[in-house]
Amino acid sequence: MSNQSNALKAEVLEHASSREEWWSLPRTLYSEPSVYEAELEAIWRSGWLFVGHSCEVLAPGDFFTYEVGPDSLIFVRGDEGTLRGFHNVCRHRGTRLCREASGSVTELQCPYHGWTYRRDGVLSACKGMGGNVTPGETQLQSVHVEELGGLVFASLADSPPEFAPAAELIAPQLAPQGLERAKVAKAVTYDVPVNWKLIWENNRECYHCNQNHPQYILANFDHYNSDDTSEELHAALQAAQLRHDQALRSAGIEVSHGETGMALFPDPETGRWYSADRTTLVEGYLTESMDGALVSTLMGAYTEPDVGTLRVRTMPNCWMHASCDHAVSTSFAPIDKDHTRIIVRWLVAGDAVEGEDYELEKVMPFWELTSVQDWELCREVQRGVLSSGYRPGPLSRTKEYCLNAFLSWYCGALKDWAGESK
Amino acid sequence: MSNQSNALKAEVLEHASSREEWWSLPRTLYSEPSVYEAELEAIWRSGWLFVGHSCEVLAPGDFFTYEVGPDSLIFVRGDEGTLRGFHNVCRHRGTRLCREASGSVTELQCPYHGWTYRRDGVLSACKGMGGNVTPGETQLQSVHVEELGGLVFASLADSPPEFAPAAELIAPQLAPQGLERAKVAKAVTYDVPVNWKLIWENNRECYHCNQNHPQYILANFDHYNSDDTSEELHAALQAAQLRHDQALRSAGIEVSHGETGMALFPDPETGRWYSADRTTLVEGYLTESMDGALVSTLMGAYTEPDVGTLRVRTMPNCWMHASCDHAVSTSFAPIDKDHTRIIVRWLVAGDAVEGEDYELEKVMPFWELTSVQDWELCREVQRGVLSSGYRPGPLSRTKEYCLNAFLSWYCGALKDWAGESK
Amino acid sequence: MSNQSNALKAEVLEHASSREEWWSLPRTLYSEPSVYEAELEAIWRSGWLFVGHSCEVLAPGDFFTYEVGPDSLIFVRGDEGTLRGFHNVCRHRGTRLCREASGSVTELQCPYHGWTYRRDGVLSACKGMGGNVTPGETQLQSVHVEELGGLVFASLADSPPEFAPAAELIAPQLAPQGLERAKVAKAVTYDVPVNWKLIWENNRECYHCNQNHPQYILANFDHYNSDDTSEELHAALQAAQLRHDQALRSAGIEVSHGETGMALFPDPETGRWYSADRTTLVEGYLTESMDGALVSTLMGAYTEPDVGTLRVRTMPNCWMHASCDHAVSTSFAPIDKDHTRIIVRWLVAGDAVEGEDYELEKVMPFWELTSVQDWELCREVQRGVLSSGYRPGPLSRTKEYCLNAFLSWYCGALKDWAGESK
Repeated sequence: MSNQSNALKAEVLEHASSREEWWSLPRTLYSEPSVYEAELEAIWRSGWLFVGHSCEVLAPGDFFTYEVGPDSLIFVRGDEGTLRGFHNVCRHRGTRLCREASGSVTELQCPYHGWTYRRDGVLSACKGMGGNVTPGETQLQSVHVEELGGLVFASLADSPPEFAPAAELIAPQLAPQGLERAKVAKAVTYDVPVNWKLIWENNRECYHCNQNHPQYILANFDHYNSDDTSEELHAALQAAQLRHDQALRSAGIEVSHGETGMALFPDPETGRWYSADRTTLVEGYLTESMDGALVSTLMGAYTEPDVGTLRVRTMPNCWMHASCDHAVSTSFAPIDKDHTRIIVRWLVAGDAVEGEDYELEKVMPFWELTSVQDWELCREVQRGVLSSGYRPGPLSRTKEYCLNAFLSWYCGALKDWAGESK
Repeated sequence: MSNQSNALKAEVLEHASSREEWWSLPRTLYSEPSVYEAELEAIWRSGWLFVGHSCEVLAPGDFFTYEVGPDSLIFVRGDEGTLRGFHNVCRHRGTRLCREASGSVTELQCPYHGWTYRRDGVLSACKGMGGNVTPGETQLQSVHVEELGGLVFASLADSPPEFAPAAELIAPQLAPQGLERAKVAKAVTYDVPVNWKLIWENNRECYHCNQNHPQYILANFDHYNSDDTSEELHAALQAAQLRHDQALRSAGIEVSHGETGMALFPDPETGRWYSADRTTLVEGYLTESMDGALVSTLMGAYTEPDVGTLRVRTMPNCWMHASCDHAVSTSFAPIDKDHTRIIVRWLVAGDAVEGEDYELEKVMPFWELTSVQDWELCREVQRGVLSSGYRPGPLSRTKEYCLNAFLSWYCGALKDWAGESK
Repeated sequence: MSNQSNALKAEVLEHASSREEWWSLPRTLYSEPSVYEAELEAIWRSGWLFVGHSCEVLAPGDFFTYEVGPDSLIFVRGDEGTLRGFHNVCRHRGTRLCREASGSVTELQCPYHGWTYRRDGVLSACKGMGGNVTPGETQLQSVHVEELGGLVFASLADSPPEFAPAAELIAPQLAPQGLERAKVAKAVTYDVPVNWKLIWENNRECYHCNQNHPQYILANFDHYNSDDTSEELHAALQAAQLRHDQALRSAGIEVSHGETGMALFPDPETGRWYSADRTTLVEGYLTESMDGALVSTLMGAYTEPDVGTLRVRTMPNCWMHASCDHAVSTSFAPIDKDHTRIIVRWLVAGDAVEGEDYELEKVMPFWELTSVQDWELCREVQRGVLSSGYRPGPLSRTKEYCLNAFLSWYCGALKDWAGESK
């Protein structure tokens, strides 16, 4: 086993080391089963995964499940209010405990032989075992859980990376959004036949926006960059900033990313797996909707609509754009090497009423279109990068700096893992 | 090759040895392709497989086919009455000879080039070969076949395990059932996305019955065990036995398993791959039907309905429950590592007439429900045991002794195979 | 890597060497992923592939795509009339450039970020890169292309085999057919769950024709051979030849294969990957149609209908039968180890008008039936050769000499590849 494992690490190290800075990934990083196996360990079972929203599990007993690769996890609100996470696997014979995506339970009972677990994962009944069980071996396998401003993160690692710095950075920015008191108006799951990295590669640049996201570019400044900033654009951005400053000043909220182009993430210098900033929207866009008009009531502590968008991103699986009246979180996980499951959730104020305060056909299209446009593009990339004719290509230093940073972060994670116990 | 093969055996030996007595299997025994490859050799191509019923191939030329992993077999009744089995593969270019599940043939003719085989597997025509064939190399590859009281067994091994001891034990018990003169009233095939071992694990305990098989537990005593036998239950069982003794005495039939719980199988002491015994049904249940009432005419030599159920089990792929008026055989084989094909057959007396003597909607539900309930459970186990959060769990010594015995038998079979030519 | 690659070659060499002359292939050559991987390199990325017809890409900008294994290629007619072939993969991030099977373009623009290539594969625009691209690394990866009498061939090899000898042999024979001025009346794509070699094995003998192609054998002499040629047949063949000689003399066309049975291809002595010859049709058959009657206007330079069939075959992926009034090309490529995509195209004279000069329901059935009959047979062979009961069988020396030649060519190709850099 340890020979096999060393051979795997040596192979993965070779693949990860073959990537050059400012170039796209070599084909083997998409094609080799060994690389995917390593990614599960080095990334998906090591870092912090966004798994859902606190508002989906408000009351004791509320739960949701989350799938990543072959693993199913379950998150349950405890009696005293703590949210806990477990492998969704019975300690008796391994049955998946719960097949529903969400719901509410008093206890978790295995459908097979009725082993029953309290909401804190402790076995409370296993009739028929005749006492032949050892308490330490019957508790549900727990995973680390953190709640941060209404976002739920989990880690399958024994010793996850520090969470506090992420909370410190993100919590103050999330505070006015009031996600803890929001509700998920709609969630859509997309199963896409692409390697998960292509989803990030797509997200980490807006170089493709002009050609593919006609609705997105009307509202945002991301697709511009220093190299293509005209005077006219510069003036528009300045005006938008000024507008925001006035609107936000009273609320103590600030636009932290006030330039064209995307905020740098991941940051190669700090290596941080998280980031958050507030960005200006184009004049006339109060929210990320098709026409810029509000699509629901104001969320959280906002008293003015003109707050731009708050963006949060966490490696390896989440980004969120939050406008004044709704927020959209996108998260994903690999199904296998060549398939990724993506969940997009649209959130509104918790007390907003469908049909009165908002209509889904107004809330959803902006990001529904953007999402589907992106998944279609990713399919075509998947087709190409597996081809024998694919060669890594050069990245734009003005348009794809975040993509380059992601690829460096990714290869670094593989290399750290492969090198750690050689 | 021999290096590869030794590496495979070493790997499999390590996996099989990692299982501990009274614990469920380690994940690798479900997940590793190498383990599945070994199972095909060590188990599926070594032992005796139940492949069908004699009554399905009564007349010369009658045949049925049977699939196991990538192999297709064909069983044909010869002119003189002998049932023979062959790889369903033409000796010319390897074409599958026969794609039908059953039927009747005078000869077996390959659809490709017309090579023709007699019912005994000897090539009788190969027009166009110009005599360029060697008799020894043109006979269909045969497999061993045994008929036992109306059950057909086959082995792909060069030297299969002894069959006589199985016949000696089972034949006398099967005799009054008259399966040779029965007919298959209905057969249903289930393709289930689970590893084949989970089907056995499910079958080798009735610990899950209370929670999952409401109809089954009304008729049977399997789900009780020494540890939960109340005085009331004890009295009911005693009464049932007494009733049976009277009914069976005249026929020379005896209840061989007269206790609650399941009869031990496989038996770790003897290592036998077969077992048979007769078990008492609950008062009011003359047969394994939904309400206990007869669903067809009496089978075989039975003159009284109150004969309990005769149960036959053979590793690695069959169990049967035979009541006075019908019998249900369940057999299966792997399609691949993660899929199993299961065939359930309902048999009645050969001269029973549908619509007059029996109706399928009365004969089938008891085991149709039990089957589907079980396959659903197995799917959830499959999901769990492949998870990184799965750990082997403890087995109940009063409820899962047969399951423990199966897992020991299974690991032993792998270890024997892996160790045999190291 | 080079260790891995040497291990692969050693393994493939062992498999390829295990085949005996005049016997079908050992199972491993169908079952092992390593063999398929080697085939892609040794055969599919080394030789000349038939990829389509010149008449499908007549005007500058016309293109078609072609898929082989994981690779997508695109062929575009240049401004000056040259047909060029490229990997259908953007040099930026690897996106598949074009997802349509055919069409016309002024430039090739990547749907992702708009990188644009001229019809000669040179990058003409990559807005946003800020000049950070090196011309040598931005040209589409080209593949070799040759046009031969209206047939388009391509090679992914760095140094493909010589093409001139093939052109020398085939061009004169193709000349009167006028394929350059033909049109594709219909193309049908078949995705068949069989290993690609079984498609060739099926095509390289007409031993199976009597039993499986009732329409084909009425028109052709292929299914006869020296060993089963009766006097009556001999007379019929003589008469047919005489008829042809008279018809063709004036046109300077000759029947080059004037015997029963199939012309030898591939030829083990020369090792040629191409062949062409003209064959006599049965009396009453002016063309390969259901009743032998013409189904369209005469093609090319033909002035008489009675010209037999011109047949062209090229390893590893094409055969064509051309009658006086229509031609049918069949080409294929592996999708993966166990699946093959086959494209059958029916061509008629370029100026023939559907509904006036021809009707598809007359043009298509002869080869549509033959095709589907063959793919069905191949499925049954695929089932059998993967079975543990399969053993290589003997080939007929009078009926399967071309098949034997194909298998020898195939094993030779693997052995050459595996041995070349050991």
